[in-house]
Amino acid sequence: MITLASDFGSPYPAAMKGVLLHRTDARLVDVTHDFPRQDVRAAAFWLREVLPYFPPATHLVVVDPGVGTDRNALVLRAGDHALVGPDNGVLLPAARRLAGDEADELEAYVVDEREVDPVAPATTRHWSGGSSEHRSAKSTTFHGRDVFAPVAAAVHDVGGDELSSLACLAPSAVDVDLELPSPSVDDGRATGEVLVVDGFGNVITNVSGDVLAGYDRIAANGDVVPVGDTFGAVPVGDRLATVGSHGLVELDVNRGRGDEAFGLEAGDRVVLEPAEAAGG
Amino acid sequence: MITLASDFGSPYPAAMKGVLLHRTDARLVDVTHDFPRQDVRAAAFWLREVLPYFPPATHLVVVDPGVGTDRNALVLRAGDHALVGPDNGVLLPAARRLAGDEADELEAYVVDEREVDPVAPATTRHWSGGSSEHRSAKSTTFHGRDVFAPVAAAVHDVGGDELSSLACLAPSAVDVDLELPSPSVDDGRATGEVLVVDGFGNVITNVSGDVLAGYDRIAANGDVVPVGDTFGAVPVGDRLATVGSHGLVELDVNRGRGDEAFGLEAGDRVVLEPAEAAGG
Amino acid sequence: MITLASDFGSPYPAAMKGVLLHRTDARLVDVTHDFPRQDVRAAAFWLREVLPYFPPATHLVVVDPGVGTDRNALVLRAGDHALVGPDNGVLLPAARRLAGDEADELEAYVVDEREVDPVAPATTRHWSGGSSEHRSAKSTTFHGRDVFAPVAAAVHDVGGDELSSLACLAPSAVDVDLELPSPSVDDGRATGEVLVVDGFGNVITNVSGDVLAGYDRIAANGDVVPVGDTFGAVPVGDRLATVGSHGLVELDVNRGRGDEAFGLEAGDRVVLEPAEAAGG
Repeated sequence: MITLASDFGSPYPAAMKGVLLHRTDARLVDVTHDFPRQDVRAAAFWLREVLPYFPPATHLVVVDPGVGTDRNALVLRAGDHALVGPDNGVLLPAARRLAGDEADELEAYVVDEREVDPVAPATTRHWSGGSSEHRSAKSTTFHGRDVFAPVAAAVHDVGGDELSSLACLAPSAVDVDLELPSPSVDDGRATGEVLVVDGFGNVITNVSGDVLAGYDRIAANGDVVPVGDTFGAVPVGDRLATVGSHGLVELDVNRGRGDEAFGLEAGDRVVLEPAEAAGG
Repeated sequence: MITLASDFGSPYPAAMKGVLLHRTDARLVDVTHDFPRQDVRAAAFWLREVLPYFPPATHLVVVDPGVGTDRNALVLRAGDHALVGPDNGVLLPAARRLAGDEADELEAYVVDEREVDPVAPATTRHWSGGSSEHRSAKSTTFHGRDVFAPVAAAVHDVGGDELSSLACLAPSAVDVDLELPSPSVDDGRATGEVLVVDGFGNVITNVSGDVLAGYDRIAANGDVVPVGDTFGAVPVGDRLATVGSHGLVELDVNRGRGDEAFGLEAGDRVVLEPAEAAGG
Repeated sequence: MITLASDFGSPYPAAMKGVLLHRTDARLVDVTHDFPRQDVRAAAFWLREVLPYFPPATHLVVVDPGVGTDRNALVLRAGDHALVGPDNGVLLPAARRLAGDEADELEAYVVDEREVDPVAPATTRHWSGGSSEHRSAKSTTFHGRDVFAPVAAAVHDVGGDELSSLACLAPSAVDVDLELPSPSVDDGRATGEVLVVDGFGNVITNVSGDVLAGYDRIAANGDVVPVGDTFGAVPVGDRLATVGSHGLVELDVNRGRGDEAFGLEAGDRVVLEPAEAAGG
């Protein structure tokens, strides 16, 4: 099984699928192609939350604002999973979780792009320019199609335990690490930040849902709101804090948008404290 | 075969797919994840129109504004199909159509959530909060992943005739019924409403296309427009009434948006009558 | 393998999938359902660029503003591929490329719609109108579901070499040709146009990337910008010209939107010349 995730929207993912299907009979499963464009951190968060629900698979990830620069292409073995994508940090939070935070379950390989054989399109092209120049077989702006997809097909077919047998891979260290920010928790007061806002407008923070335990109300940046197990714990249109499906504190509105009601967006600072501490 | 339909957008559906693929080898087919958010009626309409074109399948449907409240999770057997989703009415119009409106072809089961085994993510999580509290295995806000997907996998694997063998299911009545509104037709004058507006801007009413038979023109809320078999029956940019692909009267614009040209949106009242009756 | 491409958005593609799955066990692969609505030229461009990366397949394409008029439904054999869609030109640029521009690798068949058997939905419908009229089995506004999908399933199952064995197909000429516009190149000055703007805002022209060879800077409509191999060749936010993944000149912004920075959209004229010629 190969999963695909990118910020490509449409229709670039189809070219990657064509390449994969040229090389492998694997089942293809779209994770999403609608990550916020060129937002490595948001993609890293979502992959960390979603990929652990998959059975062992090869995960092809292309959120790659540095395509064509000297950033490496990377393959990680993480437990029974493999991840293929740019060396810009996007793979790491998911890989660590898939590896169970055990160092010997996380191995990195760098891709030697000269050893990657791209899929040539069905026919050669006939340009009107009539120049003797021809574009190289690999584009400089679409490595998803010309590098990552061929590598993902090869990784899938050889399997995670035999990655070192691939001529295009060499064991390596990772260049760019990425850790999602951690909150500080001090005397019942948690200072964190908004990791992402989801499509419903739910504000997902990096603060563990544990901080809500035992409270009926909490102050979020000074606004006192009820703590609820479900959106339906408050009237339609009302704000609440809840433990979201990621185990993290979310600031939501029942059948409305939490981001608008709380005035928060990704990267914003969030202070959570007992309602009493905020005069609530 | 398991179909998936939701209002989740991206990337939540991927977590459901991961869970399904943990439990079953079934083919997965996306119906859509772009239903209007939390709009049970619109989803019910589209499912009624689309699911009958599928061969026998298990249909996983999550449009669930009441997630985590005491609304039940439901499994319906409808003819050769099974539907899995919340007991908020969203499944019923499709289920009735799949059952051919025959009562003994429609059976309901309620899900005992205590008997549902969610898929645990690849590794346990390490929160920074250091609390002794741990979130429960099932989230309160993402039953698509933690309840409906595991149930759909089990329903698929056991088959529609053996649903009673599943420990997590008990025969039951449905709590929340939902009937899409019916028009009144009186002496050639039909009073109905707009069920949905599609992505092209076509205004889809609940009035049977039969009312257009024999007319060249019709009055829609007093505006007289041609009746056409196809959009191309009128000049580009002109309005028309037609029998849409659902067999219902649609108010359209050839290569334009009917909703804007007619000033109509979902839920609006529509009166259709012979052009002469409106002075046309 | 059957690929699907349309401008349908959601949820109409699901009805096509249901029909296909009624008729065939083929693997289904979405190319996209988000082509710009009713934009035959943009779809033709993207299909030309994407389909050649697929292994031999049947490609179902529905961008069909003339649905229900007397435009024909068409099947093209193009090398090892088959394409199914409306006779409005949308298939031709891709088909020519798949056929390697070899005339005997491109064969056209017209669909006799009377010989196409649509899939009936699971049950007959019960309208409230009570009329004795019944809608015809085929809709006039959704040939994707009622004509093209059944034909694509049949084409897939019979294979490209046996198309003439299908009762619903007859050898024919194509009615509507479509050639994407060619640039003129004269004495180092290329006059072309914008074919499409992609989702990142990259402005994709019809001018071969060859014209950039040997230049460090180029003038685009008089604006002198660097020529780069990659977006990262210029600072974040800066403009550049590059050879995109289609082998064509693109006008881009590193991590920004080229369409906004250059003030260009699809169809606009683009003159590319050496920087010196523009006084740069």
